[in-house]
Amino acid sequence: MQIQPLSDRVLLKGVEPENVTKGGILLPQTGNKERPNLYEVVAVGPGKRDKDGNSVTIDLKPGDRVLSGQYSGDEVEVDGTKYRIVAFDYVLAKVS
Amino acid sequence: MQIQPLSDRVLLKGVEPENVTKGGILLPQTGNKERPNLYEVVAVGPGKRDKDGNSVTIDLKPGDRVLSGQYSGDEVEVDGTKYRIVAFDYVLAKVS
Amino acid sequence: MQIQPLSDRVLLKGVEPENVTKGGILLPQTGNKERPNLYEVVAVGPGKRDKDGNSVTIDLKPGDRVLSGQYSGDEVEVDGTKYRIVAFDYVLAKVS
Amino acid sequence: MQIQPLSDRVLLKGVEPENVTKGGILLPQTGNKERPNLYEVVAVGPGKRDKDGNSVTIDLKPGDRVLSGQYSGDEVEVDGTKYRIVAFDYVLAKVS
Amino acid sequence: MQIQPLSDRVLLKGVEPENVTKGGILLPQTGNKERPNLYEVVAVGPGKRDKDGNSVTIDLKPGDRVLSGQYSGDEVEVDGTKYRIVAFDYVLAKVS
Amino acid sequence: MQIQPLSDRVLLKGVEPENVTKGGILLPQTGNKERPNLYEVVAVGPGKRDKDGNSVTIDLKPGDRVLSGQYSGDEVEVDGTKYRIVAFDYVLAKVS
Amino acid sequence: MQIQPLSDRVLLKGVEPENVTKGGILLPQTGNKERPNLYEVVAVGPGKRDKDGNSVTIDLKPGDRVLSGQYSGDEVEVDGTKYRIVAFDYVLAKVS
Repeated sequence: MQIQPLSDRVLLKGVEPENVTKGGILLPQTGNKERPNLYEVVAVGPGKRDKDGNSVTIDLKPGDRVLSGQYSGDEVEVDGTKYRIVAFDYVLAKVS
Repeated sequence: MQIQPLSDRVLLKGVEPENVTKGGILLPQTGNKERPNLYEVVAVGPGKRDKDGNSVTIDLKPGDRVLSGQYSGDEVEVDGTKYRIVAFDYVLAKVS
Repeated sequence: MQIQPLSDRVLLKGVEPENVTKGGILLPQTGNKERPNLYEVVAVGPGKRDKDGNSVTIDLKPGDRVLSGQYSGDEVEVDGTKYRIVAFDYVLAKVS
Repeated sequence: MQIQPLSDRVLLKGVEPENVTKGGILLPQTGNKERPNLYEVVAVGPGKRDKDGNSVTIDLKPGDRVLSGQYSGDEVEVDGTKYRIVAFDYVLAKVS
Repeated sequence: MQIQPLSDRVLLKGVEPENVTKGGILLPQTGNKERPNLYEVVAVGPGKRDKDGNSVTIDLKPGDRVLSGQYSGDEVEVDGTKYRIVAFDYVLAKVS
Repeated sequence: MQIQPLSDRVLLKGVEPENVTKGGILLPQTGNKERPNLYEVVAVGPGKRDKDGNSVTIDLKPGDRVLSGQYSGDEVEVDGTKYRIVAFDYVLAKVS
Repeated sequence: MQIQPLSDRVLLKGVEPENVTKGGILLPQTGNKERPNLYEVVAVGPGKRDKDGNSVTIDLKPGDRVLSGQYSGDEVEVDGTKYRIVAFDYVLAKVS
């Protein structure tokens, strides 16, 4: 089962602590819920479409790691894994 | 009796649990009402029109399965079946 | 006396239960007031005008049956019959 | 003394009950204050202007009878007669 | 000392009762504070500017009498005289 | 140390009472805090930029005296002197 | 680990008191939390993109010192250092 975001949305999956490399960002998952968290991009929507069929480019691709608010967008759960579907405008930064 | 959504709206019908294939998304119908639910697209509006008669394309067709908020749009009931009429902008993702 | 809606508004009249054909939508008039109700289109405005005098087309005509919120727009009463004047954007779907 | 509305506003005067023809709309003046009332158009503004000096046409002229909310716009009183100055977008329908 | 309004603002001065001609509008200054009052235009801003330096025309000139809300814009006091600086969009009508 | 406002902002400094010429505006600094106050323009931002690099002209220059709300924008303090950084749209009028 | 802001956002780091030169702005960090604070720009986003791939220029570069509200945007913490990710529109001024 595949989830393909519509319009300008992206599908994000939380990054497990053991997958964060040394010197990495402090994940505030257990602490401050108001800070953005680290996510991995799973799928990217086509962008908002105008009537000519053109779309605004979304500067992200699957595999990118991003910072996004812990309450931005909507949460869905597939086979026990939690995802967030978030509008691109609410994704704050790319992390590399 | 047929319901044809106007403007950028789509008509959605809840997917019965027995119709969800194995490995499918967990339907939070009985549980968390704040999570989006799985719906089947029944009909698609023509898109928002401008004065030249052109419309913004809606990237959905009847039969598509989508994720949409359980309280997005309006609920109507025809012959005992519940539907939601939802603006395309509030449909989160296509599921395949 | 005739009521001609201005701009992008339409004039709607509630459909009497005895006029709803078999297999028709359940009219929630006595029940859930939050659900949209079935109305008949009586008159259609010219659409929003721009300064060149052009208007955005309204995809409805007198005689169409539509679903619209029971509290959308404004209620007027002429000779004992109640009407609603509703902006086209708030009419949800055409029913046929 | 003459009042000339600016921009997209119109000047409205309440219609006296004795001036309403038979079969006319029920004036809710003494009853439901939330329903729109019947007014006569006294003067019409030039429409919103853009920087080329063009204006969006207002589909009304002095003498037209209209339905407009009893609390829309602002009330002024000249020599004991009450008027309302209302933006065209808030005038609901023309009555003929 | 001269006050030159910026952008789409106008400078208004309240009209003294003794300066209102017979048959004039009833000034609600002592009564209903929610009604618009009669003002004289003292100065007119250049209009909102776009990046080409063009401006939307303001249909008023010094000396015009206008109706404007008693609480619209901001009040300033110079040498004991009170003025209001009000955006043109909030000036309701010209009075002649 | 120099403060250069970004986008459509201007940097304002309060005018000392002893610097206000005779016949000047009454400074409501000690009195009514809701009235706009007299400020001197210290620096002007480049204006809001579009993607071609063009900007909307700001009709002010350093040295101009302006009226601006006492709580508009943000206050900063450098070496004991207080400044306000205010978007041009909130500056009401030029005073000369 | 590098944080690259998306869209029109910038990454800011608080300036340590010992790094502020003489005659510098008073940092209200311990005092008035409502005043903007001094930050150093660490990274700048590409600007908001349109569908042709063009972006609105952001008038900042890494190393610039800026004034920005202490609660604007979102706070992230990497290896014990706090950063703020702030939309360019909320950065008030450049300091030099």
